[in-house]
Amino acid sequence: LLLEVFEPLHPADIADLLEQVNVQERTKILQLAGDYIDGEILSEIDEDIRNEVIETLEPSVLAEAMRTLESDDVVDILEDLQDVQQEAVLEALDVVDRIAVEQALAYPEFSAGRLMQREVVIAPEHWTVGDAIDHMRAQSDLPEQFYHVVLVDPRHRPTAYVTLGRLMSSRREMPLQSITEDSFRVFDAVEYEGDIAYAFNQYHLITAPVIDENGRLVGVITIDDAMAVLDEEHEEDVLRLGGVGDESLSNSTLEIVKRRFPWLGVNLATAILASIVISLFEDVLQAVVALAVLMPIVASMGGNAGTQSMTVAVRALATRDLTGSNAFRVVRREAVAGLLNGVIFAVVMGIVGVIWFGSPMIGFVIAVAMIVNLLVAGLSGVLVPLALDKVGIDPALASGTFVTTVTDVVGFFAFLGLASVVLL
Amino acid sequence: LLLEVFEPLHPADIADLLEQVNVQERTKILQLAGDYIDGEILSEIDEDIRNEVIETLEPSVLAEAMRTLESDDVVDILEDLQDVQQEAVLEALDVVDRIAVEQALAYPEFSAGRLMQREVVIAPEHWTVGDAIDHMRAQSDLPEQFYHVVLVDPRHRPTAYVTLGRLMSSRREMPLQSITEDSFRVFDAVEYEGDIAYAFNQYHLITAPVIDENGRLVGVITIDDAMAVLDEEHEEDVLRLGGVGDESLSNSTLEIVKRRFPWLGVNLATAILASIVISLFEDVLQAVVALAVLMPIVASMGGNAGTQSMTVAVRALATRDLTGSNAFRVVRREAVAGLLNGVIFAVVMGIVGVIWFGSPMIGFVIAVAMIVNLLVAGLSGVLVPLALDKVGIDPALASGTFVTTVTDVVGFFAFLGLASVVLL
Ligand SMILES: [Mg+2]
Ligand SMILES: [Mg+2]
Ligand SMILES: [Mg+2]
Ligand SMILES: [Mg+2]
Ligand SMILES: [Mg+2]
Ligand SMILES: [Mg+2]
Ligand SMILES: [Mg+2]
Ligand SMILES: [Mg+2]
Ligand SMILES: [Mg+2]
Ligand SMILES: [Mg+2]
Ligand SMILES: [Mg+2]
Ligand SMILES: [Mg+2]
Ligand SMILES: [Mg+2]
Repeated sequence: LLLEVFEPLHPADIADLLEQVNVQERTKILQLAGDYIDGEILSEIDEDIRNEVIETLEPSVLAEAMRTLESDDVVDILEDLQDVQQEAVLEALDVVDRIAVEQALAYPEFSAGRLMQREVVIAPEHWTVGDAIDHMRAQSDLPEQFYHVVLVDPRHRPTAYVTLGRLMSSRREMPLQSITEDSFRVFDAVEYEGDIAYAFNQYHLITAPVIDENGRLVGVITIDDAMAVLDEEHEEDVLRLGGVGDESLSNSTLEIVKRRFPWLGVNLATAILASIVISLFEDVLQAVVALAVLMPIVASMGGNAGTQSMTVAVRALATRDLTGSNAFRVVRREAVAGLLNGVIFAVVMGIVGVIWFGSPMIGFVIAVAMIVNLLVAGLSGVLVPLALDKVGIDPALASGTFVTTVTDVVGFFAFLGLASVVLL
Repeated sequence: LLLEVFEPLHPADIADLLEQVNVQERTKILQLAGDYIDGEILSEIDEDIRNEVIETLEPSVLAEAMRTLESDDVVDILEDLQDVQQEAVLEALDVVDRIAVEQALAYPEFSAGRLMQREVVIAPEHWTVGDAIDHMRAQSDLPEQFYHVVLVDPRHRPTAYVTLGRLMSSRREMPLQSITEDSFRVFDAVEYEGDIAYAFNQYHLITAPVIDENGRLVGVITIDDAMAVLDEEHEEDVLRLGGVGDESLSNSTLEIVKRRFPWLGVNLATAILASIVISLFEDVLQAVVALAVLMPIVASMGGNAGTQSMTVAVRALATRDLTGSNAFRVVRREAVAGLLNGVIFAVVMGIVGVIWFGSPMIGFVIAVAMIVNLLVAGLSGVLVPLALDKVGIDPALASGTFVTTVTDVVGFFAFLGLASVVLL
């Protein structure tokens, strides 16, 4: 019955199904259908529960599953296993595959060397279309999917590539050199995978060769894997912006408590900072309780405007649209926009203040606080991410805390400080 | 000199350069190098300034630029032009191209029909490898890039596809039917582009045929365009989560004021709601000014915990990891995690309250408020996005406002309400 459900599904959907059921259900499914779990499913499944699944598999089933995968997928699975399991799987691989996988694992995590597959179709530079076609037809173990033939020089350095479509429609005598593509780009094996995903998207790459420190071809990255990395980079940015480090739905309750706790702790520290600012003005709060009523408006408007400006800046830094050449213009734009929205909401809140509390002075105080607060929000929203980026900290990770601290502290200070001058 | 800077750059980088300079510089560059702007650059440039660039181009330059592009890129440029400009460009195209582009424009915005290219290589189902290769070699206008040959039945309905690599390495007599790929998937021309980007990433697609309402092949979508859509969908989510509708660095100051104003307005309305809750408790605030000092901690901790839980939920909904089958478990997990972090921070804040204000009662009140607040934050953080998704509103767009309203209102109510009972 279970196999009837699995049969028509894509491995990626089976992996999602295993992720979405609870631990008991998953154990039961794996007991019943353990033999059915193949390499494709393993490589699709979330890292957080992959270990759990792998432990239930017979070593022979696991080894067989790994043998059917391309080297990049084997590496992706192996890198997250414990040493003992890693050893066991490596032993099960053929010698050639094992060496390829071990070499990939020698490159740093999140590098091109980990992302690439070893399986690549190459041709010497001086070949003709006919040579390349004959060579391919004679080979028995071509990669499952490939879209380019990479040309290499005598020292095995990639110099250009030819698309299969071009190869197919050209005359046999045509030299490969004369039908190469402009889009050719090479990556160093140690390059960061996020930069590679960016380049694939920016330059519409489908395939890109990877070279070692001597410029020699060691593998090739394909766009489907670059697309997956782009998606992971997105996930990381969104979760970091939301103050959640690195978390998935597969994490247990205790794990998410542990992961969110530090951010809440940092937030508490900055909130206490805001409280201290407020405590400086206890006199005026005691005298005019309306100020306490209006305080959340100051905090909330500042926090919101700061988040808006920060979100745009963090995203633009990630897409490399915000650079040294337009930073000044963007900062000025945020400052002016903050000021303009500040003036608009100053008028609104001034009127609300007068009507609600019947005091022009309270209206005046909240109006001025609004202008100061939204101006500072706009400025800090873009300056904080720029500064963090400059010193090499991921702006998605830390900007939020800094920006809301600035808007809270400045907002309360402006609001209550002005109030004590005017109202006391 | 300018051309020397442009020459080695990829069209996508030239487009970025044009985006990052200011209007005056851009006008100057276009005056000097107008003829150099080709279709590739136009299709890479941000929509917000594309109009500005197109207006400076000679009609003949523009028409020539469009003729070199694949139909999907022409559509992408045309859909954002004003009617007059659109007409002019359409007239400049060859009849066949014009009809293709007009048919694509007839499909809704953000649909597969707009994303696909018309240029596709097809073969009747009954052909052999040899037939297909001979056909391709005889054709003069193969698409610039293609990776599959799509098999169609006599009624022009796509039934399978064959990779070029497979074609190349198979014997000439082999029927195409026997070397087709499992990954084959077809999309309706009216399907939403975001769903297509998801499917490309989930199923590792490289090419997917698009069909009309009669099941007939009308075009093909390639992964590079799906990757660009995935990136845009992500941009949309991040900006919406940050309370910025739809904005780019190319927007003018006045445009961003106009775009951010409505969100700030909504935020003001909800902040006033929180203020009204506070005003219900003016007595106790007057009596114990320490409460006003602690208020931002309540608001900030609740807002932060709610945002954490909401970010995870919104992202999981976007990646389809949060579904009906695990929603209950995720809600329960958030509730328990909120409660646990609530208890931890209750202890911390209880102690801080006692030390700072020397009053066990204040410590008790803030501790209880912390538990209630973090529990409610965890719950509303996941329930609000789930509810919005259910009624068909994008959870990225509206969750933030609702969640912080709930945490503010409940937090202040619990904190000040308990305080009036205990302290008055
Ligand atoms: Mg999955
Ligand atoms: Mg991995
Ligand atoms: Mg791969
Ligand atoms: Mg990463
Ligand atoms: Mg990042
Ligand atoms: Mg860009
Ligand atoms: Mg660009
Ligand atoms: Mg396009
Ligand atoms: Mg468009
Ligand atoms: Mg395209
Ligand atoms: Mg969209
Ligand atoms: Mg969306
Ligand atoms: Mg998934």
